[in-house]
Amino acid sequence: MLILMKQDAHEEEIAAVVAAVEAMGYQARSIPGGQRTAVGVVGNDRRVDSTKIEGLSGVLEVVHVSAPYKLVSREWKAEDTVIQLSNGTKIGGPNVCIMGGPCAVEDRDQILTSAEHVRAAGATVLRGGTFKPRSSPYAFQGLGLEGLKLLREAGDRFGLAIVTEALDVDSAERIAEHADIIQIGARNMANYPLLRHLGKMKKPILLKRGMSATIKELLLAAEYILSEGNEAVMLCERGIRSFDDSTRNVFDIAALAVMKSLSHLPTVADPSHGTGRRDKVIPMARAAVAAGADGLIVEMHPNPNKALSDGAQSLDPEQFRVLVQDVARVAHAIDRGIERR
Amino acid sequence: MLILMKQDAHEEEIAAVVAAVEAMGYQARSIPGGQRTAVGVVGNDRRVDSTKIEGLSGVLEVVHVSAPYKLVSREWKAEDTVIQLSNGTKIGGPNVCIMGGPCAVEDRDQILTSAEHVRAAGATVLRGGTFKPRSSPYAFQGLGLEGLKLLREAGDRFGLAIVTEALDVDSAERIAEHADIIQIGARNMANYPLLRHLGKMKKPILLKRGMSATIKELLLAAEYILSEGNEAVMLCERGIRSFDDSTRNVFDIAALAVMKSLSHLPTVADPSHGTGRRDKVIPMARAAVAAGADGLIVEMHPNPNKALSDGAQSLDPEQFRVLVQDVARVAHAIDRGIERR
Amino acid sequence: MLILMKQDAHEEEIAAVVAAVEAMGYQARSIPGGQRTAVGVVGNDRRVDSTKIEGLSGVLEVVHVSAPYKLVSREWKAEDTVIQLSNGTKIGGPNVCIMGGPCAVEDRDQILTSAEHVRAAGATVLRGGTFKPRSSPYAFQGLGLEGLKLLREAGDRFGLAIVTEALDVDSAERIAEHADIIQIGARNMANYPLLRHLGKMKKPILLKRGMSATIKELLLAAEYILSEGNEAVMLCERGIRSFDDSTRNVFDIAALAVMKSLSHLPTVADPSHGTGRRDKVIPMARAAVAAGADGLIVEMHPNPNKALSDGAQSLDPEQFRVLVQDVARVAHAIDRGIERR
Amino acid sequence: MLILMKQDAHEEEIAAVVAAVEAMGYQARSIPGGQRTAVGVVGNDRRVDSTKIEGLSGVLEVVHVSAPYKLVSREWKAEDTVIQLSNGTKIGGPNVCIMGGPCAVEDRDQILTSAEHVRAAGATVLRGGTFKPRSSPYAFQGLGLEGLKLLREAGDRFGLAIVTEALDVDSAERIAEHADIIQIGARNMANYPLLRHLGKMKKPILLKRGMSATIKELLLAAEYILSEGNEAVMLCERGIRSFDDSTRNVFDIAALAVMKSLSHLPTVADPSHGTGRRDKVIPMARAAVAAGADGLIVEMHPNPNKALSDGAQSLDPEQFRVLVQDVARVAHAIDRGIERR
Repeated sequence: MLILMKQDAHEEEIAAVVAAVEAMGYQARSIPGGQRTAVGVVGNDRRVDSTKIEGLSGVLEVVHVSAPYKLVSREWKAEDTVIQLSNGTKIGGPNVCIMGGPCAVEDRDQILTSAEHVRAAGATVLRGGTFKPRSSPYAFQGLGLEGLKLLREAGDRFGLAIVTEALDVDSAERIAEHADIIQIGARNMANYPLLRHLGKMKKPILLKRGMSATIKELLLAAEYILSEGNEAVMLCERGIRSFDDSTRNVFDIAALAVMKSLSHLPTVADPSHGTGRRDKVIPMARAAVAAGADGLIVEMHPNPNKALSDGAQSLDPEQFRVLVQDVARVAHAIDRGIERR
Repeated sequence: MLILMKQDAHEEEIAAVVAAVEAMGYQARSIPGGQRTAVGVVGNDRRVDSTKIEGLSGVLEVVHVSAPYKLVSREWKAEDTVIQLSNGTKIGGPNVCIMGGPCAVEDRDQILTSAEHVRAAGATVLRGGTFKPRSSPYAFQGLGLEGLKLLREAGDRFGLAIVTEALDVDSAERIAEHADIIQIGARNMANYPLLRHLGKMKKPILLKRGMSATIKELLLAAEYILSEGNEAVMLCERGIRSFDDSTRNVFDIAALAVMKSLSHLPTVADPSHGTGRRDKVIPMARAAVAAGADGLIVEMHPNPNKALSDGAQSLDPEQFRVLVQDVARVAHAIDRGIERR
Repeated sequence: MLILMKQDAHEEEIAAVVAAVEAMGYQARSIPGGQRTAVGVVGNDRRVDSTKIEGLSGVLEVVHVSAPYKLVSREWKAEDTVIQLSNGTKIGGPNVCIMGGPCAVEDRDQILTSAEHVRAAGATVLRGGTFKPRSSPYAFQGLGLEGLKLLREAGDRFGLAIVTEALDVDSAERIAEHADIIQIGARNMANYPLLRHLGKMKKPILLKRGMSATIKELLLAAEYILSEGNEAVMLCERGIRSFDDSTRNVFDIAALAVMKSLSHLPTVADPSHGTGRRDKVIPMARAAVAAGADGLIVEMHPNPNKALSDGAQSLDPEQFRVLVQDVARVAHAIDRGIERR
Repeated sequence: MLILMKQDAHEEEIAAVVAAVEAMGYQARSIPGGQRTAVGVVGNDRRVDSTKIEGLSGVLEVVHVSAPYKLVSREWKAEDTVIQLSNGTKIGGPNVCIMGGPCAVEDRDQILTSAEHVRAAGATVLRGGTFKPRSSPYAFQGLGLEGLKLLREAGDRFGLAIVTEALDVDSAERIAEHADIIQIGARNMANYPLLRHLGKMKKPILLKRGMSATIKELLLAAEYILSEGNEAVMLCERGIRSFDDSTRNVFDIAALAVMKSLSHLPTVADPSHGTGRRDKVIPMARAAVAAGADGLIVEMHPNPNKALSDGAQSLDPEQFRVLVQDVARVAHAIDRGIERR
């Protein structure tokens, strides 16, 4: 940590900063410069909580030299983390894992048909919302536990692992009993009590980036989970807020490459929410894989025109088949394959 | 709701849209235009879930004519909602209510001293974090229940109502036993299970806008609470994410005026988080009141240089006294006063 | 300037950085730390162009300790700059200067009527677009030189100084012959050849912040003008781009306070473009003055419903009169007045 | 165009809107609804300037059904525009065109060496800044005309077409004499007098998206050029402003797919400015091609550590060679090739 003092900082202010650092148990060294003085902090083995220092008189800015996260970082663990699911599917290894299925589980027939198409296209994980977070209290809120059981049945019948979203500790516990992966949505990325709880569970977590979360904040959210003992976390890019309404969100594909440099955790891309537009899902899926994503999660509905939610961004089964085929060619072009069963 | 068809939409596509609208129980009327056809939806008394329509072939765009929220709107309730607290303080009436206190309750002495200064300055509500949401799992997380009891003691001794933040259903329940207002932070604005739970409680809620939430989304979050029966909600602007790091957030003061036009609920401004910089808090407090805010929530610490969190944006007691005095003059200039006891 | 090296930087990489700094004519001193080494740069009396350093092997980040601008800064000139116009109006002094008038000069009658109302309300500067920047090539582009002469006539008849926007060097030269202030719009804030040209002129410049410009970038744009010799620059906040379409832009009122801390130049607020909504202009004008703005620029049209452009955000004459009256009360509450003639 | 009236709009207000539409020469038809009335506008063959209508009493919102641009749209011209350069290179056809070279032309040796590497790697266009836009007036501003002549010499010697940026009409005219493509940077995207001037020239234009321009605004900027007669415009995505500083900008790869749907013009991606980080350029180049970009423009310097500007994002010659090779494989995976000579 480096503490930059204001140009007109007094000797006493500098001394007070040095004293404050030492009171926190670290060493401080003053570094006089041409225009101003800096104070270096030595002896900290992880990020120091700097808010005490920032408020001190004469302090211009505190510069963190160490990253604020630890367990999720490549400096802590150099080799890629690979997560293996119950049906043998691996995420984070040489192959790209594809997850597909409807926005929401609507009924038994719909999810069984979906699963059949997902399997036929060559994907290995079935998605489907059961506990739905909706901006409006008047919108369809999902089938809950009943939907979860239907999802499990569909996954089992077609040999697919399953993933669905938890909204709170209760739904997380129920999902953990039935599903292979617990998804945490953008709205809950900074729900710290929930993250801590997930850290004590023994289930892989698919953690989506918040709508306006920085990559650093996403890594810190993952750190909450890892710091409690659960190391099976996937980092998911799903688009961020911006000023342009041409697409639902701005799909930050470079984030996939940045996360992979900074962290050993697997990365997953969600081109459905990332764009919100059906005709952009396939090109963005190709782009995400070209950028190095370890997995894709894609909305597909047997009949998108009848979907109860997110119909505008759902592929139909034939489009999903084309997606898997196109993505396989791009994966091959960067010396990867598609994870299959 | 108006459904705009693509320029080259076929007759069958238009007919399918009309049929889908009628299947939802509404009337549809086709409106042929110079370049394209629109379909109007009649007979809905509140917002229709349009995702089914958006996915239909030939549809360009769905335009919502009705607002998606209802109970929070001025159309539903024209007169201002006024919330009264245990110590008689009113929020949403002719006077501006000022809430002050430290970012976090740190110890008994600190919160008692804080309360004394808050009262002396002329404010009527004491704030203080007890369950703290922190981006890093390694930062100070608050004193929890112990802090809550200290906050209550301090409030009682100086005749102040108290407000503190809940992170989940558990902390909300504990806070409801001791505090006058439950604060919901930006990170939890879209935590829908928590919002539903709050809607069943009988406590005033201070609901902060999410970091990149639109005003419409904030109103919908409040609608979750009102739709369960709790109408005592304050809408709080606390700054939004932007590209400029000159301030911690961009303090969207116009949002206060926009919310007051659209909704009958009281508005509160948080210039401390809105700017993140101590020397900008007073001018922004003045500006928020000039724009029509019904309340202010401001961080003040007896000794900001020793604060365990957010020291850089906390006022000291003398600055807080000046703030109340300056704000009172601005309130007077727009024919309002400061709520006092 | 401080150069932070990567954790695993080699001795040779550090030596190469030191050599590069010395080759630029400065002194470098290596500062070994607990986790990594930093290199401090001494002897530079203004900001160093760091792009050469950033690309060197082993460099993590370059931290600028000095601000990149000089002449616009408070460190260079501590006292406020006050700009005086031909009719005696001062901007940047103890009083708040109000500028009003239509988005565009439409005809002789319209601008004369506008000027009469501006004067009657108590403002001292008349605005009116003559060379208009429009997003669409098919929208009304302004009356040009003819409009400029009408604006001058209207200003002269009612004792008002006049301000209008230049789009390029040619229009700037014409405007300089007739007007008191040359306005540079958001779209041209980073038009550096134009800024350099303005720096050689002897006219006050009203420089608007770019749609997504940081405050630092606005100050650097002003530095372009000052560095060529023209010190009469006003910094204008007019709203920035964001994700929320509740208002046309997010009006960044805190920017007014930040600019005033960092720079000696006068600040002006444009609540008309800042919100884009007529009913929000008065509360935001009050808020801007409460935050410390030295001036306001406001759109007013004798008949907003017939305006050729920006009718939705223009006040009518009676609303403008109320604005001046309300703003005067807020100015008084912070011990300022309104600049009058 | 559809005009939505407020819920409580009076008959007279609706009549006034109808009259205003008819005064503009169009037909209006009133569409009564369940909650409110809409007024449809018929008979307009291109977008109507709606600002007059928006300001009318009782109007809630104006919805544009037609796009505001015309000549750039696919509805106007269905087939892809292909631009051919002097050395035979085509942009917008089946193959992907690669442009490479230094941020700035620094000296004869540097640009000749660059050109040699660009050619050897298999690219066909040489880039190099000669008139440089810099945020700070104190940064290196380019070699100007001298640099332009060196760039031409280097292009000619290695059979490469050349592209460089114009800052104003003067530099555009000089560049047109020597170069094959005139680049317009993000800061000048909305410099309408310059765009109009370019529209009268006979040179291909590479038009970069503004830092916070919507795709619609970029298309309108291109419309300025086409409306004056120059149809050889390339649309370039180079990253947009956001809240996250992990990368210099957010590289909006989906914009490439959106632009290609809406417009017949060729698209170009700039992964160097899009990310600002050397190690992210290759993956983002792959992603842009996978998303359908017709061209790439990439910064390469013979010795990035000695570059006078943007060294941190410049590839070295070997990295550039790998980029072309990797991109060729991805292009092949989507049934395209690389444009070669």
